[in-house]
This record gives sequence, C-alpha cells and structure tokens, in this order.
Amino acid sequence: MGFHDKLNHAWRSTGSMLCVGLDPDPERMPAPVRGRPDAIERFCIAIVDATAATACAFKPQVAYFASQGAEAQLEQVCAYIRDAHPDHVLILDAKRGDIGSTAEHYAREAFVRYGADAVTVNPYLGTDSVEPFLRHEGKGTIILCRTSNPGGDDFQSLLVDGQPLYTHVARKVADEWSHLGECGLVVGATYPHEVGIVRDIVGDLALLVPGVGAQGGEVRATVRLGSTNAGTGLIINSSRAILYASSGEDFAEAAAGVAAATRDEIRSVAVG
Amino acid sequence: MGFHDKLNHAWRSTGSMLCVGLDPDPERMPAPVRGRPDAIERFCIAIVDATAATACAFKPQVAYFASQGAEAQLEQVCAYIRDAHPDHVLILDAKRGDIGSTAEHYAREAFVRYGADAVTVNPYLGTDSVEPFLRHEGKGTIILCRTSNPGGDDFQSLLVDGQPLYTHVARKVADEWSHLGECGLVVGATYPHEVGIVRDIVGDLALLVPGVGAQGGEVRATVRLGSTNAGTGLIINSSRAILYASSGEDFAEAAAGVAAATRDEIRSVAVG
Repeated sequence: MGFHDKLNHAWRSTGSMLCVGLDPDPERMPAPVRGRPDAIERFCIAIVDATAATACAFKPQVAYFASQGAEAQLEQVCAYIRDAHPDHVLILDAKRGDIGSTAEHYAREAFVRYGADAVTVNPYLGTDSVEPFLRHEGKGTIILCRTSNPGGDDFQSLLVDGQPLYTHVARKVADEWSHLGECGLVVGATYPHEVGIVRDIVGDLALLVPGVGAQGGEVRATVRLGSTNAGTGLIINSSRAILYASSGEDFAEAAAGVAAATRDEIRSVAVG
Repeated sequence: MGFHDKLNHAWRSTGSMLCVGLDPDPERMPAPVRGRPDAIERFCIAIVDATAATACAFKPQVAYFASQGAEAQLEQVCAYIRDAHPDHVLILDAKRGDIGSTAEHYAREAFVRYGADAVTVNPYLGTDSVEPFLRHEGKGTIILCRTSNPGGDDFQSLLVDGQPLYTHVARKVADEWSHLGECGLVVGATYPHEVGIVRDIVGDLALLVPGVGAQGGEVRATVRLGSTNAGTGLIINSSRAILYASSGEDFAEAAAGVAAATRDEIRSVAVG
C-alpha cells in the first residue's frame, strides 16, 4: 500500500485529518520524563499513544533529535509508530534538499533507516534533487511550497510571469513530479487563501498544513479552502499546542484533550 | 577568530582555495578500510591527513553519514579535524532550511554538536529561517544561491523583475543577511559566468563552489571570474575525484596527488 492509499485509509479509519508533530524540545520536557536519559523517546511514545485515536499521522521533526544527538531515539520512536500504529502515516519532517547521489542518501535516511511513509523536501535545487526520493516506490515526497513563517514571503511570493514563485512550485509538482512518484505539498495555514490557490493547481494531491495551534493559523478557513471534494486531502499539523498542553503528570492526557479538540474543529468544517 | 578571519588565515597559510569534500560512499570504500565497523571514520581521517597540506577547508556531507546511521563517526571526524588541523575551516554540508525554533536546533547541530565553523543553508524559507544560524557569533552561514546540478535551472533561473531568482538571493545575502552575521554563498562551478555575476553582487563574501572534479566544472573560468581582487574569495570543493582516486592500498596517496594537482590548477589562475 503506497503513501496515498495509506493516507486515504488513515483519513477514513480515524475520521481525522490531524497530524501530531513530534518536536521534543529538551527545555520543555514534562515532569514525568524530565532528566531521564531516554526522555525524548518516552515523551514521544506517550504522546503518540495518547493522540493516536484522534490523528491520521505523526510527524517527527528531525532537527530536535539532531541537535541532541538523539538519532537512536528517533529510530525507536519511528519503529514504535510503525509497530504499534501501523495504519497511521509516518512523515519525517526533514526538509532535505541536495543533488543526485547525495539526495539518494537522504532518501535512504528517511525511507530505509527511519522507515517513514513520507518525507518533506525543499524544491530549490530542482527536479534532479527530488527524483531520488520519487524513485522510492510507494513512498511520499512532500514538497515545500508555501511555508507558514513570515520570511516565507521573501522568495516564495516573488512574481514570475505575474504569478508568485510558490505557484510555479505547485505547478511543477502537479505537472511533472507527481507523475514520477507520489507527491504532496507543504502549504502553511497562516495563509488560508493560498492553501486554496494551491489546491486549485494540484487537484487531489495531499497538502501538509503546518501553522495551526501555536502558530495561530486559521483552521476553519484552511479546511474550507483546502479540502478536496471528498472532504479530505489535508494533513493538518499541530505540534507545540498538543505536545506542551501540560508540563505536569497529566501531559499525555492534556495532549489527548487538545488533539481531540483540534480534530473536532477540523471535522466540524469538513463535514459541515 | 570568526569564520571569515579563519578562512582568510587558511587561504594565506595554505596558499590554497581547495576544499576537500568528505562524502563517504559505503559502496566505494577503499580496500584498507572496507568492511571495518569504523570504515567511514578511518577513511575520512586518512583523506584529511593526506590532503591537509593542499586544502584550506574540509566539508563533510551529512547525508552520507545520516543514511548509514553514522553520526557518531561524523562527530569523531569533525573532532579530529578541529584538533589535528585547527587552522583548516570545517564546513558542514547540511543544506538545512526550516523555521524559527526548528532552525535554531539545526544551528546547534552544526555549530555545537559538530563544532563546524560554517554550515550550508537553503534560502527558500526566507529571513527568519536563516537568522538563527546568523546569530551564532563567529560562525559562517553559507547560503545556497546557484547550484551546480541541471535541475538548478528549474527555479533558480526563473526571472523576477527581469533578473534570475538566484541573483535576488545573492542580493538578499549581500544587502541584509550579511549584516546580521557572517555569510557565504554556494555557486556551482558548472556555470562559471554565473559565479562572476554573483561575485559582482556580493563584494568580497566567500563563495563555496562545488562542481569541479567529478562534476566537470571549469576550474580556470571559475577562478578567473569568481576571485576577489585579493586573489582569494573562493572555497573550491572537490569530493569524489579526490576521495576515490584509488580504491587500493594507495588511496590516501592517490587522493593527495589529485588534491595537489587541483590546488595547483586553481593557483595557476589565481596568481597568474
């Protein structure tokens, strides 16, 4: 079962388009795991188990593991997700971007070492930097298109032939890259109308949407403008608002509560 | 001593603008190290020692370590370069690009965990994705501008206000980012005249130039068009042509020979 089939199955079986981002910040570890040598792994696994019922996907952010030399714990977290929640989609948020043989090594990192179903990739280096990812059959390559941060404007909004650069990225994915492999796109929820613009360009391709929760993106407008006709099509990520809902003994329970509320908010628009 | 001072010192003391890229491909390990559990580390350290006399910098490529789960060996290689060759510039080729707090974790990965003097960063996410790197005082942030691969054209050459996108990136670095911290730019040697265009925009900022050696870039035109008035300004990278000059017992000696020849070719243009 390839990336899109698995994602469709996860959307249907969980009734959720919520993705829980795993950004384990060493300064915000809750009390029950703080100071433990395996704090990152314990924390992430507790969050995964607490939110699995309300989420279609999990998205570990590599940077938080890399800064702490915690690749072994990331391997454990990914293995746990694959084993304990095999129907959930595992997205490695790595935003890799390099050329030829080097890109193939990053693809192996994501798909073989960590066993991810999909990985985020930067488009700036063009087709031959993305192809090595696309060649991994059944795996998803999620291309950065319009990011949720203020600086996203610096280059992504520059006009090329009268259209912002990010729409050219969206067209490249829709017209070329998605014919070479399974693609998705990253489009930030801080710009809901742009989620709609990208949806119009890329048909039914999956959109990974960061920026809700702590980043303040508008869930309702995003879902209204970004969903497909089937009422799905979105992987709406929330990280910090869920992960750090409580720093106490009840951190997992609190995370589950925020995740359920976010899932419900998404669903109220999607079905209504 | 900050990145640019260290680089200037390295250019002068070694008389070389050659950077040796460390891309340890598991399928190309030479006979003396092949099959050893610490093959990557042994191989890289042998190459470093063999080429130190002819190079100003070393550039480990993270992807090759990440695909093999060899971060611990990358730590050892970086520590060795810092200890045994403290005047050489250590550049981590990571091409990271992410937002805010996540970018700060990637900056810590490069500058704290691996102790690099500089790191390569992707500009697509804009100013707030680069700032966390720039805030690390004395460290270098080397921005992807014009890459050496065929797909580099896909977006980098699109015209914005009549000028290719990569020149807008160069201007952003020259006019803004280089005032927030120490910057360099990546410009591929496969397009020597574009190295010249970027040089005209960015003044004396250091240019990291991949694409010579195995990628076939033209050393002479690159040096002629890309050097500063001081006859320096370039970090010219060669990886595979040096690393895999021989697969036998003489691999380090062969690497030293190719590195010296490349250094000499660069120098013949730079001083002539």
